Amino acid sequence: MNISYRLNKLRLKMSDMNLDAILISSPENRRYFSSFTGSFGNLLITHQDQFLVTDSRYVEQAEMQSSEFSIIRLSGGGFSWILDLLKKNSNINMGFEGNDLTVEQYSNLESILGDSASFSGVKLVKTTSFLDLIRAVKDSQEIKILKKAIEITDDSFEEVSNSIEPGISEKEIAWELEKAMRVRGAESLAFDTIVAAGKNGSMAHHRAGDSAVFDLDFVVIDMGAKFQGYCADLTRTIFLGERNQKFNEIYQIVLLAQKQATHAVRSGMTGGEVDNIAREVISDAGFGENFGHGLGHGVGLAVHEYPRVGPKSKDILENGMVFTIEPGIYIPEWGGIRIEDVVVLDSDKAVVLSRSEKIKIS
Amino acid sequence: MNISYRLNKLRLKMSDMNLDAILISSPENRRYFSSFTGSFGNLLITHQDQFLVTDSRYVEQAEMQSSEFSIIRLSGGGFSWILDLLKKNSNINMGFEGNDLTVEQYSNLESILGDSASFSGVKLVKTTSFLDLIRAVKDSQEIKILKKAIEITDDSFEEVSNSIEPGISEKEIAWELEKAMRVRGAESLAFDTIVAAGKNGSMAHHRAGDSAVFDLDFVVIDMGAKFQGYCADLTRTIFLGERNQKFNEIYQIVLLAQKQATHAVRSGMTGGEVDNIAREVISDAGFGENFGHGLGHGVGLAVHEYPRVGPKSKDILENGMVFTIEPGIYIPEWGGIRIEDVVVLDSDKAVVLSRSEKIKIS
Repeated sequence: MNISYRLNKLRLKMSDMNLDAILISSPENRRYFSSFTGSFGNLLITHQDQFLVTDSRYVEQAEMQSSEFSIIRLSGGGFSWILDLLKKNSNINMGFEGNDLTVEQYSNLESILGDSASFSGVKLVKTTSFLDLIRAVKDSQEIKILKKAIEITDDSFEEVSNSIEPGISEKEIAWELEKAMRVRGAESLAFDTIVAAGKNGSMAHHRAGDSAVFDLDFVVIDMGAKFQGYCADLTRTIFLGERNQKFNEIYQIVLLAQKQATHAVRSGMTGGEVDNIAREVISDAGFGENFGHGLGHGVGLAVHEYPRVGPKSKDILENGMVFTIEPGIYIPEWGGIRIEDVVVLDSDKAVVLSRSEKIKIS
Repeated sequence: MNISYRLNKLRLKMSDMNLDAILISSPENRRYFSSFTGSFGNLLITHQDQFLVTDSRYVEQAEMQSSEFSIIRLSGGGFSWILDLLKKNSNINMGFEGNDLTVEQYSNLESILGDSASFSGVKLVKTTSFLDLIRAVKDSQEIKILKKAIEITDDSFEEVSNSIEPGISEKEIAWELEKAMRVRGAESLAFDTIVAAGKNGSMAHHRAGDSAVFDLDFVVIDMGAKFQGYCADLTRTIFLGERNQKFNEIYQIVLLAQKQATHAVRSGMTGGEVDNIAREVISDAGFGENFGHGLGHGVGLAVHEYPRVGPKSKDILENGMVFTIEPGIYIPEWGGIRIEDVVVLDSDKAVVLSRSEKIKIS
């Protein structure tokens, strides 16, 4: 991974925001800017230096994974190490991740800086989407990894969905899917697999349980492999046995909403505008109240990340951004239908990366 | 689960702390006090009422799981719903989880309360370990579930560790362990399984990779099943082939440190005191520098929770608390040895719950 390139990009943005240093604490941003995959650590990046601070469990690993960084071994918790690393500076603006650091961590940080006479000059600057927006635009290496995660997911869905026998439980289907993904190289799941049979489908995030699947049931399957840190995300709704008319009608509305949004999306639009395209199709068909979640979300090192693709999102969609398009209609006591693909914006248009078949309604 | 009992306990503690309301945001505390297992939601608990606020994806599930709560369906993000729920109150102290709420969420919360003229009376009170300490003392139902999670883990370790053939990779061992746990009813892993062969063992949190295991290698395996939300945590170091003297010596030191701490721990001691018992054994043997992490940690709905059992911990150990005892010695370029059991404090002493065999050094 091209860490130097990412750090250059980061430092340019830091200059724009008048930041002399930034403290990076979230696992995804830590990994993105340093390649370090351990579960504990902070990055401190100034215009001159880059430090990775972790504890004894991870020092050797950090040295192997993050050769561009000076690795600092932390003993004990807290942020007092910052005093050592910054001591030659004064009057600096230090950014931190407002959407990662907890109130408690922040107040520890403040008190450490406040207690030290030499640090009267450090001003803490809350950042929110700054780092996440850098990460939202994927490079070709990331797209390649994402495609592999998606391929594993598609192939596993195909294998398992074609072998579902009546009587199998949601949980068993979820486990078959997980095994299929792991055998194909997934390091883990991107998220807990959702398998929702029949009425359970009306719960958009139903967790696979003991309910069995029978003929004439439709089943929402929402799954994703994690590969080299990157998350796939795929939803298909399948039908066992011969489909009835209500299912066909609603499936077609959801599919149409997805198609229209996918075809119409262009670089420069906001996430909210794309959401609106799909939402109008569903509302016009009379199911506006039954589409309770956003149309999609960015996907990458985190399964939900920037850009936001929901009703109120003002995030501007750019080439290289990867996100889901996943309209759904949920009817209590009946069930739900959701169809989800991952797309990448390329040459101003959406290229669909998911390959799993959808139902063809004649 | 006895939610009413937990809520009563919570309200007593709220009175002690002069809190009129508490906002619960962390997944574990949310589940503990409401039984709700969804990935998104907040609890707002006053002395009169209890609300569970979640979005459309989870409303049906919340109604099924948390019948003691009024379920509020949230549309859009943020905290503006708090205004509706609290509107009849004024001059109230509202606690929040300082170690869960991010700086960004907190400032949203502050601005919503600040913008509303009728809310000049709400004072936000940061709490840190308050809820986590309630959760640290397990009831008999929780102990039963934890025992099952530990049993699944022990049985899976036994099966897989007895069938390791030279040439198998760390990753393959991890996957065999995972399958064995899932087949036995684990809903997921409590954490990514650590399998560290040979020199990799010097990295206490090495992630299972492509290194193969051969004769004369020793392998650190750190694993845990999650069952009904509760986490097991087990480490064993195994040796393939005939053991050498250095391994035997170091293994014995680690085992002695673990035994002494386990036998000496009593209710009323601090976590730091227990850590110190094991640390002294290892330091006296000349390996103090090679034991870089804390002796253990509480375990329950989270794999790391209260009580803290590290060098500086002042947490008082009480009957009903469940925690790990896991000393280790790590030598770069040689490898590592760690032995970990879960114990519960019962009648003032530690009862070891883990059953997996340890190496007998004659």
